[in-house]
This record gives sequence, structure tokens and C-alpha cells, in this order.
Amino acid sequence: MSEAAVRVIGLWPSPFVIRVLIALKLKHVEYEFVEEVVGSKSELLLASNPVHKKIPVLLHHGKPLSESLIIVQYIDEVWSSGAPAAILPADPYARAVQRFWAQYVDDKMHPAIRVLKGTYDGDKEQAAGQLSAALQLLEEAFAQLGQGKRYFGGDSVGYLDIALVSHVGWVKAVEKIAGVTLLDEAKVPNLVAWADRLCAHPAVVDAIPDADKFVEFSVTYGSFS
Amino acid sequence: MSEAAVRVIGLWPSPFVIRVLIALKLKHVEYEFVEEVVGSKSELLLASNPVHKKIPVLLHHGKPLSESLIIVQYIDEVWSSGAPAAILPADPYARAVQRFWAQYVDDKMHPAIRVLKGTYDGDKEQAAGQLSAALQLLEEAFAQLGQGKRYFGGDSVGYLDIALVSHVGWVKAVEKIAGVTLLDEAKVPNLVAWADRLCAHPAVVDAIPDADKFVEFSVTYGSFS
Repeated sequence: MSEAAVRVIGLWPSPFVIRVLIALKLKHVEYEFVEEVVGSKSELLLASNPVHKKIPVLLHHGKPLSESLIIVQYIDEVWSSGAPAAILPADPYARAVQRFWAQYVDDKMHPAIRVLKGTYDGDKEQAAGQLSAALQLLEEAFAQLGQGKRYFGGDSVGYLDIALVSHVGWVKAVEKIAGVTLLDEAKVPNLVAWADRLCAHPAVVDAIPDADKFVEFSVTYGSFS
Repeated sequence: MSEAAVRVIGLWPSPFVIRVLIALKLKHVEYEFVEEVVGSKSELLLASNPVHKKIPVLLHHGKPLSESLIIVQYIDEVWSSGAPAAILPADPYARAVQRFWAQYVDDKMHPAIRVLKGTYDGDKEQAAGQLSAALQLLEEAFAQLGQGKRYFGGDSVGYLDIALVSHVGWVKAVEKIAGVTLLDEAKVPNLVAWADRLCAHPAVVDAIPDADKFVEFSVTYGSFS
């Protein structure tokens, strides 16, 4: 039996894995999901990402790629023709702006989410404040970038949409775990509507389960989550 | 008097500023360098990068861009026609590999350099070990990517060349400051030859002064460096 042309090594609750799956679904690319076991690393993972030994890895005809935002750009560049819209805009300035905010999301939101989950030590109140501040900035960025359209990418799902929505499952989960309100309709109404809209999108709906599943994973696996 | 079409807000010793200047020089783009004052932030900087308040900022017809690797990609995309070779390769896999290593350089080398400079607290011996290990991996990557050619990008200076060489001034400076050998000809001979070659390149030579100038800056400005 031959291997699938496209394989993703990952675990379903990883936001970084989620964004690779969304990009593949957006481009209608068939893939095989190679699930890791929580708390151990497969030989395939270690051989495919010897530098960081981290998920996700995309294997394309056996050639490994890692770092989720780099993989999303690769997917956009390889599957660039046909019906699905481009993930990154064509205009260089618009591309740079989306790259800027995607990096912001990973730099500022992800560490705070991990503190609220209990994966990292840290002041939970401070982390919730950081997350709220980041969401507030993104609410303003949405008004600028989305310009009243459905997504950060305009009418179709773009790079920053993918980068940000991949964290929404855990944002909703830490609201329950830490007893805080983050996606607050009074404070970030456009972002709340954006998240609802995007989480129902056919390329996203199966990649991001309900918050309760993330909470359950966190309770079961603790520090691995 | 009208403003220059391209302006860079920065300070000469910043590796992140250096890489923007190299990319502009490679593309033969005229620019105005707007020098910040060490220890304070100009109104122009604060207005141009309100999120991070950090250099470098590229102003292109007044529109601000920040995050050095994002700026380098923008420069490559905007000034894409004409004689200077592309900074990123055309092949999506080769692009992803260069992006991977560029991110590795910033994630692993930069924090260790700051510890050796004394800007961050930390174990200097451990930091030197981390830097040596990173350079060893990059030596191996050079054999794979450069394939006996002059640069990581092959015959012309590419994205990873720019990302890595921008740290070389400080690597050589911390060798003096901390009394360690990092660019060790016995351990990373190809990387040493690559650094010598690239630092003499017309697009690089003026952007990276002698190690002594970096040492002097570090002595003078301490924690700001």
C-alpha cells in the first residue's frame, strides 16, 4: 500500500496542527492524519523534525515541512491554481500586514493561553489581561482589514483568519477552565461574530471541536496539553 | 522638501535593522536612514509601530511595516523585477526551508547572543553552548542548501543568508566580550568561509561594521544594546 501524497503528523487539540488542517481543507487537498500519542514522540516525528521535534509536520511526497505558519504559506504556494481563493492576498503590503498580525497572535496570545490552561506557570490574572488586550487590538485590526467583510481576508478565509481561529478552541476552553470572559460580546463584538462565522465554515467546523472537548483534554492530559 | 519614498527607522547595531538595509541594498533601492536615539523612542517610531514600538520600521510612501523578516519578504515582493536576483527562491519547498532556518536563527541564536552580551540575565556558558550548537546545525544546513555554492541561496544572496549574516557582527563581538570562540574554523569551516565571503559583499560590507564597533557600542550603552 502506498503512502498518501500528503500526510500531517499531529494531535487534534494543537492550534498549530489545526491551522494546517484548515489550510488543506480550504484548498480541497486530500490528506492522511497521522496521530501522535500524547506524551511521546513517534519515530516518524523525530525523523521528520529533528531540529524541534514538534508537531505539526506536513509530509508532501515524503518531504517534511515544519512550523505551522510556514506550512500554511507552502500550502498556499503549492496549491495556487483552481477554484479555492489564495490564502495570502496578492498585494505585498496586505500580505505583510497579515503576516504581522499572525506573528502577533503567536507571540502574544499563545503564551497567555498556556498560562490560563496551567501548562505554564504564571500569573493567571495577568495572562487574562494580556489576552483581552490582544483581542481588543485584533478587534480594531478587523475593522481596518476586514472593512465590513466576512473575514480578515475579506470575502474569503485568509492567512490571519487561519492563524487566529486556530486558537479559538483553546480561548473558549480557558474561559471555562480559568473562569474568565475573553470573547466578550460587549468588548469585541466583531471578533465574536467573526469567530462564530468562521467556526461554522466547512473548512473549519471539523477541525475545531467544542470547547468542552478541549477542557476534557486539558483535564485528562494536564501538562501535555 | 518631500520625504524619501523609502525610509528605515532604526539603529545601526540592531541585527534586525541590518537585514532590512541589506535587502534594500541587494535590490538597489535608495533609502533614507532615520536614526533613533539609544534609550528613547521617537514620535515617528511610536506612530509607525504602535503595537511593538520596536525598530526596524520600513516606511514605503509613508506606509509603515515592521518585523524584520516580514519587511525582507515585502522588499523581495515589491522590487521583484529587474537585475537583482530574488531573495526567496521560486520553489515553494526551498522557500519553506529557508523560512524555517531563518526562524530558527531568531528563536535560538538571538536570545543566546543577548545573554552573552549581558543584555539578558542567564548562564553565559550555557548560552555559548547553545550558540555553538546552533552554528553546528547551520553548518550542516549549509552543506545541504548551499550544495557547494557561495551562499545558502546558491549563487546569489538569499533570505537565510540575510537572516543569519545580520547576527554575525554581534557573534564576533560577543566572542570578544565573553571570551568564547563561536565561529570556530575547526568546527564550522564552511560557515566561517561563508561569513567572510558575505561580509565582503557590496550589499553587506557597509551594513556590518567591525566587531570592535559592536563591542564599543555594548560598553557605552550596556543594557540598551
